[in-house]
Amino acid sequence: MSEQTDAENQNGDNGKITAALLVIGDEILSGRTKDKNIGTIADHLTDVGIQLREVRVVADEEVDIVAAVNALRKENTYLFTTGGIGPTHDDITADCVAKAFNVSIDVDQRAVDVMRAKRPDMELNEARLRMARIPDGADLIENAVSGAPGFMLDNVMVMAGVPSIMQSMLAAVTPRLKTGKKMMSVTLEVKRPEGAVAGPLGRIAETFPDVSMGSYPYYIDGNYGTNLVLRSTDAARLEAAEAALKKELTDTGLID
Amino acid sequence: MSEQTDAENQNGDNGKITAALLVIGDEILSGRTKDKNIGTIADHLTDVGIQLREVRVVADEEVDIVAAVNALRKENTYLFTTGGIGPTHDDITADCVAKAFNVSIDVDQRAVDVMRAKRPDMELNEARLRMARIPDGADLIENAVSGAPGFMLDNVMVMAGVPSIMQSMLAAVTPRLKTGKKMMSVTLEVKRPEGAVAGPLGRIAETFPDVSMGSYPYYIDGNYGTNLVLRSTDAARLEAAEAALKKELTDTGLID
Repeated sequence: MSEQTDAENQNGDNGKITAALLVIGDEILSGRTKDKNIGTIADHLTDVGIQLREVRVVADEEVDIVAAVNALRKENTYLFTTGGIGPTHDDITADCVAKAFNVSIDVDQRAVDVMRAKRPDMELNEARLRMARIPDGADLIENAVSGAPGFMLDNVMVMAGVPSIMQSMLAAVTPRLKTGKKMMSVTLEVKRPEGAVAGPLGRIAETFPDVSMGSYPYYIDGNYGTNLVLRSTDAARLEAAEAALKKELTDTGLID
Repeated sequence: MSEQTDAENQNGDNGKITAALLVIGDEILSGRTKDKNIGTIADHLTDVGIQLREVRVVADEEVDIVAAVNALRKENTYLFTTGGIGPTHDDITADCVAKAFNVSIDVDQRAVDVMRAKRPDMELNEARLRMARIPDGADLIENAVSGAPGFMLDNVMVMAGVPSIMQSMLAAVTPRLKTGKKMMSVTLEVKRPEGAVAGPLGRIAETFPDVSMGSYPYYIDGNYGTNLVLRSTDAARLEAAEAALKKELTDTGLID
Protein backbone atom coordinates (compact mmCIF):
# COMPACT_ATOMS: atom_id res chain seq x y z
CA MET A 1 0.00 0.00 0.00
CA SER A 2 0.96 3.57 -0.45
CA GLU A 3 2.53 5.73 2.21
CA GLN A 4 0.14 8.19 3.79
CA THR A 5 1.18 11.79 4.04
CA ASP A 6 0.34 13.12 7.47
CA ALA A 7 -2.67 15.25 8.23
CA GLU A 8 -0.73 18.49 8.46
CA ASN A 9 0.73 18.04 4.99
CA GLN A 10 -2.61 16.95 3.59
CA ASN A 11 -3.95 20.35 4.54
CA GLY A 12 -0.95 22.48 3.58
CA ASP A 13 -0.16 25.59 5.59
CA ASN A 14 -2.82 27.55 7.47
CA GLY A 15 -5.50 24.98 6.68
CA LYS A 16 -5.43 25.99 3.00
CA ILE A 17 -5.87 23.34 0.36
CA THR A 18 -2.69 23.50 -1.72
CA ALA A 19 -1.44 21.81 -4.86
CA ALA A 20 1.64 21.42 -7.00
CA LEU A 21 1.80 20.53 -10.69
CA LEU A 22 4.53 18.41 -12.26
CA VAL A 23 4.74 18.64 -16.05
CA ILE A 24 6.71 15.71 -17.48
CA GLY A 25 8.23 15.72 -20.93
CA ASP A 26 11.40 16.43 -22.93
CA GLU A 27 9.25 18.11 -25.57
CA ILE A 28 8.31 21.00 -23.27
CA LEU A 29 11.94 21.61 -22.27
CA SER A 30 13.19 21.49 -25.87
CA GLY A 31 10.52 23.98 -26.94
CA ARG A 32 9.06 21.57 -29.49
CA THR A 33 5.73 21.51 -27.68
CA LYS A 34 4.39 24.62 -25.98
CA ASP A 35 2.69 23.73 -22.71
CA LYS A 36 -1.02 24.50 -22.67
CA ASN A 37 -1.88 22.73 -19.42
CA ILE A 38 -0.29 24.97 -16.76
CA GLY A 39 -2.68 27.86 -17.42
CA THR A 40 -5.74 25.59 -17.64
CA ILE A 41 -4.94 23.82 -14.39
CA ALA A 42 -4.08 27.10 -12.63
CA ASP A 43 -7.44 28.59 -13.63
CA HIS A 44 -9.34 25.46 -12.62
CA LEU A 45 -7.70 25.15 -9.20
CA THR A 46 -8.29 28.84 -8.46
CA ASP A 47 -11.95 28.35 -9.41
CA VAL A 48 -12.43 25.50 -6.94
CA GLY A 49 -10.47 27.13 -4.09
CA ILE A 50 -7.26 25.07 -4.29
CA GLN A 51 -4.08 27.16 -4.15
CA LEU A 52 -1.50 26.15 -6.77
CA ARG A 53 1.80 26.76 -4.98
CA GLU A 54 4.42 25.42 -7.39
CA VAL A 55 4.87 24.07 -10.89
CA ARG A 56 7.85 22.05 -12.09
CA VAL A 57 8.71 20.86 -15.58
CA VAL A 58 11.12 17.91 -15.77
CA ALA A 59 12.43 15.64 -18.53
CA ASP A 60 11.51 11.99 -19.15
CA GLU A 61 14.19 10.86 -16.69
CA GLU A 62 13.34 8.47 -13.88
CA VAL A 63 15.57 10.00 -11.24
CA ASP A 64 14.21 13.50 -11.87
CA ILE A 65 10.57 12.41 -11.92
CA VAL A 66 10.78 10.31 -8.75
CA ALA A 67 12.56 13.08 -6.85
CA ALA A 68 10.03 15.71 -7.94
CA VAL A 69 7.03 13.48 -7.14
CA ASN A 70 8.31 12.81 -3.66
CA ALA A 71 9.23 16.43 -2.93
CA LEU A 72 5.97 17.90 -4.19
CA ARG A 73 3.47 15.34 -2.84
CA LYS A 74 4.81 15.79 0.67
CA GLU A 75 4.69 19.59 0.61
CA ASN A 76 1.14 19.95 -0.71
CA THR A 77 -2.37 18.66 -0.20
CA TYR A 78 -2.37 17.43 -3.80
CA LEU A 79 0.08 16.83 -6.61
CA PHE A 80 -1.10 16.76 -10.22
CA THR A 81 1.12 15.39 -12.99
CA THR A 82 0.72 15.73 -16.75
CA GLY A 83 2.47 13.74 -19.47
CA GLY A 84 4.34 10.49 -19.87
CA ILE A 85 1.46 8.01 -19.64
CA GLY A 86 1.24 7.04 -23.32
CA PRO A 87 2.32 3.78 -24.98
CA THR A 88 5.94 4.54 -25.94
CA HIS A 89 9.33 3.73 -24.41
CA ASP A 90 9.71 7.24 -22.99
CA ASP A 91 6.33 7.13 -21.18
CA ILE A 92 7.60 6.26 -17.71
CA THR A 93 5.42 8.37 -15.40
CA ALA A 94 3.31 5.50 -13.99
CA ASP A 95 6.41 3.44 -13.20
CA CYS A 96 8.10 6.48 -11.59
CA VAL A 97 5.06 7.19 -9.40
CA ALA A 98 4.99 3.53 -8.30
CA LYS A 99 8.68 3.82 -7.46
CA ALA A 100 8.15 7.07 -5.55
CA PHE A 101 5.49 5.34 -3.39
CA ASN A 102 7.45 2.07 -3.27
CA VAL A 103 4.47 0.05 -4.53
CA SER A 104 4.31 -2.52 -7.34
CA ILE A 105 2.88 -1.81 -10.79
CA ASP A 106 1.37 -4.10 -13.39
CA VAL A 107 -1.28 -4.23 -16.11
CA ASP A 108 -4.57 -3.48 -14.32
CA GLN A 109 -7.68 -5.37 -15.46
CA ARG A 110 -9.92 -2.39 -14.69
CA ALA A 111 -7.85 -0.27 -17.09
CA VAL A 112 -7.91 -2.97 -19.76
CA ASP A 113 -11.69 -3.17 -19.44
CA VAL A 114 -12.27 0.58 -19.89
CA MET A 115 -9.89 0.67 -22.86
CA ARG A 116 -11.73 -2.23 -24.53
CA ALA A 117 -15.12 -0.69 -23.78
CA LYS A 118 -14.11 2.69 -25.25
CA ARG A 119 -12.52 1.34 -28.41
CA PRO A 120 -13.64 -2.23 -29.01
CA ASP A 121 -11.98 -2.47 -32.45
CA MET A 122 -8.51 -1.48 -31.24
CA GLU A 123 -5.88 -4.18 -30.95
CA LEU A 124 -4.46 -4.18 -27.41
CA ASN A 125 -0.86 -4.75 -28.46
CA GLU A 126 2.09 -4.70 -26.06
CA ALA A 127 2.58 -0.94 -26.45
CA ARG A 128 -1.06 -0.17 -25.72
CA LEU A 129 -1.06 -2.47 -22.71
CA ARG A 130 1.64 -0.19 -21.27
CA MET A 131 -1.15 2.37 -20.87
CA ALA A 132 -3.01 -0.07 -18.60
CA ARG A 133 -0.09 -0.28 -16.14
CA ILE A 134 -1.42 1.17 -12.87
CA PRO A 135 0.39 1.26 -9.51
CA ASP A 136 -1.01 -0.98 -6.79
CA GLY A 137 -3.61 0.81 -4.65
CA ALA A 138 -4.48 3.51 -7.20
CA ASP A 139 -7.98 4.47 -8.35
CA LEU A 140 -8.56 5.11 -12.06
CA ILE A 141 -9.35 8.54 -13.47
CA GLU A 142 -11.71 8.43 -16.45
CA ASN A 143 -10.47 9.50 -19.88
CA ALA A 144 -13.62 10.35 -21.86
CA VAL A 145 -11.59 11.21 -24.97
CA SER A 146 -9.48 8.18 -25.85
CA GLY A 147 -10.06 5.59 -23.13
CA ALA A 148 -6.68 4.93 -21.52
CA PRO A 149 -7.19 6.13 -17.94
CA GLY A 150 -5.19 8.26 -15.57
CA PHE A 151 -5.01 7.35 -11.91
CA MET A 152 -5.08 8.79 -8.38
CA LEU A 153 -2.68 7.26 -5.84
CA ASP A 154 -3.00 8.74 -2.35
CA ASN A 155 -2.77 12.51 -3.00
CA VAL A 156 -1.21 12.27 -6.50
CA MET A 157 -3.31 12.62 -9.65
CA VAL A 158 -1.60 11.31 -12.79
CA MET A 159 -3.04 12.75 -16.00
CA ALA A 160 -2.25 12.74 -19.72
CA GLY A 161 -0.30 15.53 -21.43
CA VAL A 162 -2.56 15.93 -24.47
CA PRO A 163 -4.66 18.98 -23.44
CA SER A 164 -8.10 17.62 -24.39
CA ILE A 165 -7.45 14.38 -22.50
CA MET A 166 -5.96 16.21 -19.51
CA GLN A 167 -9.07 18.42 -19.32
CA SER A 168 -11.33 15.37 -19.36
CA MET A 169 -9.33 13.78 -16.52
CA LEU A 170 -9.22 16.98 -14.47
CA ALA A 171 -13.00 17.30 -14.69
CA ALA A 172 -13.41 13.63 -13.76
CA VAL A 173 -11.21 13.77 -10.66
CA THR A 174 -12.26 17.13 -9.22
CA PRO A 175 -15.37 15.82 -7.39
CA ARG A 176 -13.05 13.53 -5.39
CA LEU A 177 -10.92 16.43 -4.09
CA LYS A 178 -11.29 18.55 -1.01
CA THR A 179 -11.83 22.08 -2.24
CA GLY A 180 -11.50 25.37 -0.41
CA LYS A 181 -13.01 28.83 -0.24
CA LYS A 182 -13.19 30.35 -3.67
CA MET A 183 -10.67 33.12 -4.27
CA MET A 184 -12.30 36.32 -5.54
CA SER A 185 -10.49 39.07 -7.36
CA VAL A 186 -10.94 42.67 -8.47
CA THR A 187 -8.85 44.32 -11.18
CA LEU A 188 -8.25 48.09 -11.45
CA GLU A 189 -6.62 49.34 -14.64
CA VAL A 190 -4.46 52.44 -14.33
CA LYS A 191 -3.18 54.05 -17.52
CA ARG A 192 0.17 54.89 -15.96
CA PRO A 193 3.43 52.95 -15.75
CA GLU A 194 3.92 50.58 -12.85
CA GLY A 195 6.53 52.86 -11.26
CA ALA A 196 3.91 55.58 -10.83
CA VAL A 197 1.40 53.37 -9.02
CA ALA A 198 3.78 51.25 -6.94
CA GLY A 199 3.88 53.72 -4.03
CA PRO A 200 0.10 54.03 -3.53
CA LEU A 201 -0.36 50.28 -4.02
CA GLY A 202 2.32 49.50 -1.44
CA ARG A 203 0.65 51.74 1.14
CA ILE A 204 -2.72 50.00 0.71
CA ALA A 205 -1.03 46.57 0.74
CA GLU A 206 0.38 47.42 4.19
CA THR A 207 -3.08 48.37 5.46
CA PHE A 208 -4.65 45.14 4.14
CA PRO A 209 -2.06 42.40 4.78
CA ASP A 210 -4.78 39.75 4.37
CA VAL A 211 -5.65 40.84 0.81
CA SER A 212 -3.19 39.75 -1.87
CA MET A 213 -2.24 42.65 -4.18
CA GLY A 214 -0.43 42.26 -7.45
CA SER A 215 0.64 44.73 -10.08
CA TYR A 216 0.87 43.70 -13.74
CA PRO A 217 2.43 46.24 -16.09
CA TYR A 218 1.81 46.25 -19.81
CA TYR A 219 3.37 48.11 -22.69
CA ILE A 220 1.23 48.27 -25.81
CA ASP A 221 1.80 50.50 -28.86
CA GLY A 222 4.12 52.77 -26.93
CA ASN A 223 1.76 53.21 -23.98
CA TYR A 224 2.48 52.03 -20.46
CA GLY A 225 -0.29 50.87 -18.18
CA THR A 226 -0.75 48.71 -15.10
CA ASN A 227 -3.44 46.32 -13.94
CA LEU A 228 -3.75 46.16 -10.17
CA VAL A 229 -5.28 42.91 -8.95
CA LEU A 230 -6.65 42.41 -5.43
CA ARG A 231 -7.48 38.87 -4.29
CA SER A 232 -9.16 37.48 -1.19
CA THR A 233 -11.53 34.73 -0.10
CA ASP A 234 -13.38 37.32 2.04
CA ALA A 235 -15.80 39.48 0.00
CA ALA A 236 -16.09 42.23 2.62
CA ARG A 237 -12.33 42.66 2.98
CA LEU A 238 -11.90 42.64 -0.78
CA GLU A 239 -14.51 45.39 -1.14
CA ALA A 240 -12.89 47.48 1.61
CA ALA A 241 -9.43 47.13 0.05
CA GLU A 242 -10.77 48.08 -3.38
CA ALA A 243 -12.42 51.22 -1.97
CA ALA A 244 -9.24 52.21 -0.10
CA LEU A 245 -7.10 51.69 -3.20
CA LYS A 246 -9.47 53.70 -5.41
CA LYS A 247 -9.39 56.56 -2.90
CA GLU A 248 -5.58 56.48 -2.73
CA LEU A 249 -5.28 56.47 -6.54
CA THR A 250 -7.77 59.34 -6.81
CA ASP A 251 -6.09 61.39 -4.05
CA THR A 252 -2.72 61.01 -5.81
CA GLY A 253 -4.22 62.00 -9.18
CA LEU A 254 -3.52 58.65 -10.85
CA ILE A 255 -7.17 57.98 -11.72
CA ASP A 256 -10.12 60.35 -12.10
CA MET B 1 31.61 38.48 -3.58
CA SER B 2 29.47 35.71 -4.86
CA GLU B 3 30.12 32.06 -4.24
CA GLN B 4 31.54 30.23 -7.20
CA THR B 5 29.91 27.01 -8.28
CA ASP B 6 32.57 24.41 -8.98
CA ALA B 7 33.74 23.50 -12.44
CA GLU B 8 31.82 20.26 -12.62
CA ASN B 9 28.52 21.97 -11.88
CA GLN B 10 29.34 24.78 -14.28
CA ASN B 11 29.44 22.21 -17.03
CA GLY B 12 26.49 20.05 -15.98
CA ASP B 13 26.57 16.33 -16.68
CA ASN B 14 28.61 14.83 -19.52
CA GLY B 15 30.16 18.17 -20.41
CA LYS B 16 26.79 19.43 -21.66
CA ILE B 17 25.85 23.03 -21.11
CA THR B 18 22.66 22.89 -19.06
CA ALA B 19 20.17 25.41 -17.75
CA ALA B 20 17.19 25.74 -15.47
CA LEU B 21 14.46 28.38 -15.60
CA LEU B 22 12.73 29.82 -12.54
CA VAL B 23 9.47 31.66 -13.27
CA ILE B 24 8.52 33.90 -10.34
CA GLY B 25 5.03 35.23 -9.80
CA ASP B 26 1.71 34.63 -8.04
CA GLU B 27 -0.09 35.63 -11.22
CA ILE B 28 1.13 32.56 -13.13
CA LEU B 29 0.07 30.20 -10.32
CA SER B 30 -3.37 31.81 -9.97
CA GLY B 31 -3.94 31.53 -13.72
CA ARG B 32 -4.46 35.27 -14.09
CA THR B 33 -1.45 35.57 -16.38
CA LYS B 34 -0.63 32.81 -18.86
CA ASP B 35 3.12 32.31 -19.08
CA LYS B 36 4.57 33.08 -22.49
CA ASN B 37 8.24 32.92 -21.55
CA ILE B 38 8.84 29.19 -20.96
CA GLY B 39 8.32 28.28 -24.63
CA THR B 40 10.37 31.25 -25.89
CA ILE B 41 13.31 30.47 -23.61
CA ALA B 42 13.13 26.72 -24.38
CA ASP B 43 13.29 27.42 -28.12
CA HIS B 44 16.14 29.90 -27.72
CA LEU B 45 18.27 27.65 -25.53
CA THR B 46 17.77 24.69 -27.90
CA ASP B 47 18.85 26.95 -30.78
CA VAL B 48 22.13 27.89 -29.09
CA GLY B 49 22.94 24.39 -27.83
CA ILE B 50 22.07 24.83 -24.15
CA GLN B 51 19.96 22.01 -22.70
CA LEU B 52 17.04 23.25 -20.57
CA ARG B 53 16.76 20.59 -17.88
CA GLU B 54 14.11 21.94 -15.53
CA VAL B 55 11.56 24.72 -15.11
CA ARG B 56 10.00 25.77 -11.83
CA VAL B 57 7.23 28.28 -11.18
CA VAL B 58 7.08 29.68 -7.64
CA ALA B 59 5.09 32.41 -5.89
CA ASP B 60 6.36 35.82 -4.73
CA GLU B 61 7.54 34.31 -1.44
CA GLU B 62 11.10 34.88 -0.25
CA VAL B 63 11.65 31.43 1.26
CA ASP B 64 10.46 29.68 -1.91
CA ILE B 65 12.49 31.88 -4.27
CA VAL B 66 15.73 31.62 -2.29
CA ALA B 67 15.42 27.82 -2.00
CA ALA B 68 14.71 27.41 -5.72
CA VAL B 69 17.56 29.76 -6.76
CA ASN B 70 20.05 27.85 -4.64
CA ALA B 71 18.88 24.41 -5.75
CA LEU B 72 18.80 25.21 -9.46
CA ARG B 73 21.97 27.31 -9.79
CA LYS B 74 24.04 24.54 -8.24
CA GLU B 75 22.64 21.78 -10.45
CA ASN B 76 23.05 23.57 -13.79
CA THR B 77 25.54 25.56 -15.81
CA TYR B 78 23.08 28.45 -15.87
CA LEU B 79 19.91 29.54 -14.12
CA PHE B 80 17.55 32.03 -15.76
CA THR B 81 14.82 33.74 -13.77
CA THR B 82 11.84 35.72 -15.05
CA GLY B 83 9.57 38.04 -13.08
CA GLY B 84 9.61 40.00 -9.86
CA ILE B 85 12.02 42.81 -10.77
CA GLY B 86 9.50 45.64 -11.17
CA PRO B 87 8.87 48.57 -8.83
CA THR B 88 6.16 47.20 -6.51
CA HIS B 89 6.15 45.71 -3.02
CA ASP B 90 5.83 42.16 -4.36
CA ASP B 91 8.88 42.50 -6.64
CA ILE B 92 11.43 40.75 -4.44
CA THR B 93 13.50 38.72 -6.90
CA ALA B 94 16.67 40.86 -6.74
CA ASP B 95 16.66 40.81 -2.93
CA CYS B 96 16.08 37.05 -2.92
CA VAL B 97 18.96 36.43 -5.33
CA ALA B 98 21.24 38.57 -3.16
CA LYS B 99 20.14 36.53 -0.15
CA ALA B 100 20.72 33.24 -2.00
CA PHE B 101 24.32 34.33 -2.76
CA ASN B 102 24.75 35.98 0.66
CA VAL B 103 25.83 39.29 -0.89
CA SER B 104 24.57 42.80 -0.16
CA ILE B 105 22.18 44.71 -2.40
CA ASP B 106 21.61 48.43 -2.89
CA VAL B 107 20.65 51.00 -5.51
CA ASP B 108 23.32 50.67 -8.22
CA GLN B 109 24.53 53.86 -9.92
CA ARG B 110 25.06 52.05 -13.23
CA ALA B 111 21.40 51.01 -13.22
CA VAL B 112 20.26 54.54 -12.32
CA ASP B 113 22.33 55.91 -15.20
CA VAL B 114 20.83 53.58 -17.82
CA MET B 115 17.32 54.25 -16.55
CA ARG B 116 17.87 58.03 -16.77
CA ALA B 117 19.44 57.71 -20.22
CA LYS B 118 16.55 55.63 -21.57
CA ARG B 119 13.76 57.78 -20.18
CA PRO B 120 15.12 61.21 -19.22
CA ASP B 121 11.67 62.67 -18.45
CA MET B 122 10.69 59.98 -15.96
CA GLU B 123 10.73 60.86 -12.29
CA LEU B 124 12.95 58.38 -10.43
CA ASN B 125 10.67 58.05 -7.41
CA GLU B 126 11.23 55.61 -4.56
CA ALA B 127 9.31 52.83 -6.31
CA ARG B 128 11.29 53.19 -9.54
CA LEU B 129 14.58 53.24 -7.65
CA ARG B 130 13.65 49.74 -6.43
CA MET B 131 14.29 48.65 -10.01
CA ALA B 132 17.89 49.90 -9.71
CA ARG B 133 18.61 47.64 -6.73
CA ILE B 134 21.32 45.23 -7.95
CA PRO B 135 23.20 42.63 -5.85
CA ASP B 136 26.87 43.32 -5.20
CA GLY B 137 29.12 41.78 -7.86
CA ALA B 138 26.46 41.50 -10.57
CA ASP B 139 26.76 42.72 -14.16
CA LEU B 140 23.80 44.50 -15.73
CA ILE B 141 21.73 43.01 -18.56
CA GLU B 142 20.44 45.61 -21.00
CA ASN B 143 16.71 46.25 -21.30
CA ALA B 144 16.22 47.87 -24.71
CA VAL B 145 12.46 48.21 -24.18
CA SER B 146 11.91 50.16 -20.98
CA GLY B 147 15.34 50.82 -19.46
CA ALA B 148 15.36 49.14 -16.03
CA PRO B 149 18.03 46.47 -16.38
CA GLY B 150 18.25 42.83 -15.45
CA PHE B 151 21.46 41.41 -14.07
CA MET B 152 23.82 38.45 -14.20
CA LEU B 153 25.34 37.27 -10.91
CA ASP B 154 27.76 34.38 -11.28
CA ASN B 155 25.73 31.84 -13.32
CA VAL B 156 22.29 33.36 -12.61
CA MET B 157 20.55 35.61 -15.15
CA VAL B 158 17.73 37.68 -13.67
CA MET B 159 15.26 38.92 -16.28
CA ALA B 160 11.89 40.69 -16.40
CA GLY B 161 8.59 38.82 -16.71
CA VAL B 162 7.01 41.04 -19.37
CA PRO B 163 7.66 38.98 -22.54
CA SER B 164 8.95 41.79 -24.77
CA ILE B 165 11.39 42.93 -22.07
CA MET B 166 12.44 39.35 -21.27
CA GLN B 167 13.20 38.76 -24.96
CA SER B 168 15.33 41.90 -25.11
CA MET B 169 17.31 40.78 -22.06
CA LEU B 170 17.73 37.21 -23.32
CA ALA B 171 19.17 38.50 -26.58
CA ALA B 172 21.47 40.88 -24.70
CA VAL B 173 22.91 38.25 -22.37
CA THR B 174 23.30 35.33 -24.79
CA PRO B 175 26.69 36.47 -26.21
CA ARG B 176 28.11 36.20 -22.66
CA LEU B 177 27.11 32.53 -22.29
CA LYS B 178 28.99 29.38 -23.14
CA THR B 179 26.92 27.63 -25.77
CA GLY B 180 27.04 24.03 -26.95
CA LYS B 181 26.60 21.92 -30.02
CA LYS B 182 23.34 22.73 -31.70
CA MET B 183 20.67 20.07 -31.31
CA MET B 184 19.22 18.99 -34.65
CA SER B 185 15.89 17.27 -35.09
CA VAL B 186 13.88 15.35 -37.67
CA THR B 187 10.12 14.82 -37.45
CA LEU B 188 8.25 11.93 -39.08
CA GLU B 189 4.47 12.14 -39.14
CA VAL B 190 2.59 8.84 -39.03
CA LYS B 191 -1.17 8.91 -39.54
CA ARG B 192 -1.74 6.20 -36.97
CA PRO B 193 -2.35 6.33 -33.23
CA GLU B 194 0.64 6.32 -30.92
CA GLY B 195 -0.13 2.79 -29.73
CA ALA B 196 0.42 1.47 -33.27
CA VAL B 197 3.87 3.06 -33.70
CA ALA B 198 5.23 2.62 -30.17
CA GLY B 199 6.63 -0.87 -30.85
CA PRO B 200 8.65 0.02 -33.97
CA LEU B 201 9.85 3.27 -32.38
CA GLY B 202 10.98 1.44 -29.24
CA ARG B 203 13.02 -1.03 -31.30
CA ILE B 204 14.85 1.75 -33.15
CA ALA B 205 15.38 3.68 -29.90
CA GLU B 206 17.20 0.63 -28.50
CA THR B 207 19.45 0.49 -31.56
CA PHE B 208 20.30 4.21 -31.33
CA PRO B 209 20.64 4.96 -27.59
CA ASP B 210 22.55 8.17 -28.42
CA VAL B 211 19.65 9.64 -30.45
CA SER B 212 16.75 11.02 -28.42
CA MET B 213 13.39 9.76 -29.74
CA GLY B 214 10.05 11.20 -28.73
CA SER B 215 6.53 10.38 -29.78
CA TYR B 216 3.84 13.09 -29.78
CA PRO B 217 0.29 11.91 -30.40
CA TYR B 218 -2.43 14.17 -31.69
CA TYR B 219 -6.16 13.79 -32.05
CA ILE B 220 -7.76 16.17 -34.50
CA ASP B 221 -11.30 15.97 -35.89
CA GLY B 222 -11.65 12.35 -34.88
CA ASN B 223 -8.35 11.27 -36.43
CA TYR B 224 -5.39 9.96 -34.46
CA GLY B 225 -1.84 10.59 -35.57
CA THR B 226 1.65 10.68 -34.12
CA ASN B 227 4.69 12.85 -34.73
CA LEU B 228 7.94 11.00 -34.12
CA VAL B 229 10.83 13.34 -33.32
CA LEU B 230 14.48 12.27 -33.43
CA ARG B 231 17.07 14.60 -31.89
CA SER B 232 20.87 14.54 -31.84
CA THR B 233 23.86 16.88 -32.03
CA ASP B 234 25.47 14.45 -34.52
CA ALA B 235 24.13 14.86 -38.08
CA ALA B 236 25.37 11.46 -39.30
CA ARG B 237 23.81 9.55 -36.41
CA LEU B 238 20.56 11.48 -36.83
CA GLU B 239 20.43 10.58 -40.52
CA ALA B 240 21.17 6.90 -39.80
CA ALA B 241 18.45 6.75 -37.15
CA GLU B 242 15.94 8.41 -39.46
CA ALA B 243 16.68 5.90 -42.23
CA ALA B 244 16.36 2.96 -39.82
CA LEU B 245 13.07 4.26 -38.44
CA LYS B 246 11.62 4.84 -41.94
CA LYS B 247 12.56 1.28 -42.93
CA GLU B 248 11.00 -0.15 -39.75
CA LEU B 249 7.79 1.83 -40.28
CA THR B 250 7.64 0.76 -43.95
CA ASP B 251 8.33 -2.90 -43.14
CA THR B 252 5.52 -2.90 -40.57
CA GLY B 253 3.11 -1.25 -43.02
CA LEU B 254 2.69 1.94 -40.97
CA ILE B 255 3.91 4.28 -43.71
CA ASP B 256 4.05 3.81 -47.48
